[in-house]
Amino acid sequence: MFSEIITVGDEILRGDILNSNARWLAKRLTALGVVVRRITSVGDDVEEIKSVLCEAIRRSNTYIFVTGGLGPTRDDMTMAAVAEALGRNLVLSREGLRWVKEKYQRAKERGLIEDESMTPSRLKMAMIPEGATPLYNPLGAATSVKLEVSGTKIFVLPGVPAEMIAIFESIESEIKGVKPCHKCLKVHTRDESSIASLLDEVHEKYGVRVASYPKIKAGEDFWVELRLSSDDDAVVERSFAFLKQQLEIRGIKVDELVEDGDDEWRAEVEKLKEMSGGRRRS
Amino acid sequence: MFSEIITVGDEILRGDILNSNARWLAKRLTALGVVVRRITSVGDDVEEIKSVLCEAIRRSNTYIFVTGGLGPTRDDMTMAAVAEALGRNLVLSREGLRWVKEKYQRAKERGLIEDESMTPSRLKMAMIPEGATPLYNPLGAATSVKLEVSGTKIFVLPGVPAEMIAIFESIESEIKGVKPCHKCLKVHTRDESSIASLLDEVHEKYGVRVASYPKIKAGEDFWVELRLSSDDDAVVERSFAFLKQQLEIRGIKVDELVEDGDDEWRAEVEKLKEMSGGRRRS
Repeated sequence: MFSEIITVGDEILRGDILNSNARWLAKRLTALGVVVRRITSVGDDVEEIKSVLCEAIRRSNTYIFVTGGLGPTRDDMTMAAVAEALGRNLVLSREGLRWVKEKYQRAKERGLIEDESMTPSRLKMAMIPEGATPLYNPLGAATSVKLEVSGTKIFVLPGVPAEMIAIFESIESEIKGVKPCHKCLKVHTRDESSIASLLDEVHEKYGVRVASYPKIKAGEDFWVELRLSSDDDAVVERSFAFLKQQLEIRGIKVDELVEDGDDEWRAEVEKLKEMSGGRRRS
Repeated sequence: MFSEIITVGDEILRGDILNSNARWLAKRLTALGVVVRRITSVGDDVEEIKSVLCEAIRRSNTYIFVTGGLGPTRDDMTMAAVAEALGRNLVLSREGLRWVKEKYQRAKERGLIEDESMTPSRLKMAMIPEGATPLYNPLGAATSVKLEVSGTKIFVLPGVPAEMIAIFESIESEIKGVKPCHKCLKVHTRDESSIASLLDEVHEKYGVRVASYPKIKAGEDFWVELRLSSDDDAVVERSFAFLKQQLEIRGIKVDELVEDGDDEWRAEVEKLKEMSGGRRRS
């Protein structure tokens, strides 16, 4: 189960913002047991979006997630690029149009806008590649889509984080992965090189995958974070027991790390859903 | 002046951490007037690193920055992958070896490690692609390199943020770009679609590039951020004056945004330089 994430937007390439969308998707896909093989950020440029999508399709992924560039303005060109990449026309989605109309109707009722008429820039948010399935956006006007090409499921999501998350959660049950087992450790040593041969030994003895990250922060102690992973839980447990024992012999302390969830993100999404009245549909 | 950034590490693909290295490099390159065309994250996998680097070279960039995977452990394989991608041998750098030896010598003197001998995992950090120029790492042991291939300058930097920044700053004077002019604005409207046709008009009238970002955060007001950019400062100024006037006619307030610097990062790097005694060399 391989996947790729493509994020679209000049603001990422200029370093104006951190790519938190990519991280969120990567974290969630990993939790679902889907291996993210590549994350690519490209700018608001039809040719760039087209080529990175075509490359990702050629790499035979099970899933491809594209986020960003679905809004009403000229620099939002992801749908057009996706349609071109797949050799399809960009067509007005009947469902999409109904959703966009409803959004502006509701915004007018709530006194947020004065005019709810379907201008070209609003219509643009209901345009999708021919044959794609529109996905309802509970928090915004831009229509998302899913489509399938040569065995790859492609999801095109908005760049506004809360909208992306809300739509992802509406299609999450379609994502099937194989959950690998793992354990994260904090090794209290300042010197990664001094445990490198032990890590090799653990890898060779148990066949466990070992990843090692030196953590260095001014004003704090240095340490090394380890991640042991395998398709087999018993392999992780056995290799962890051996590693712990060997580190203790060397007088090096090791703690098990508990990974943090995404509670903060979820709270934000829930608040926004309430604000926009999007809950009515979910 | 086009460039690409390649970040290496499974921890990014799993969503364990935000890709702050890519953002820092992108921001700094943009400030130098270099256009970042693509940012790609791949895992700790020789084949993946090789293929993304070869693809980036084929796209005729002026600069390519690769970060991550230079450490002493088995999962650090970037140098080997870069050497393979370029069809070069991985060789022991004399300068690199001297630096690595010095690091561990100094760490022993400071009582941080017990044994300073050159184990295979420490030697590994002095191995570089044949013909590459080693770059001194004031904050760590892993040797960085620069090399040139078919007109593209490639810099291979560590993944530890402070080390990456320190080495980047040592080669920054080699990076030449063309600074574009821009202005960032905060438009006090909740409805991006209602200003889309005005933005088109501004673009068509002045030839200015207009990027538009709806900002939505629970508990705060919504607004739209605009970025006007051009190679010509006068074009930015004229289009800004027109846009401001037109927004005011529509009763929409607009503020000019001041962009934040990277003071926080710099403070961290300076603190680490002091801690590691790296200042002696700079």
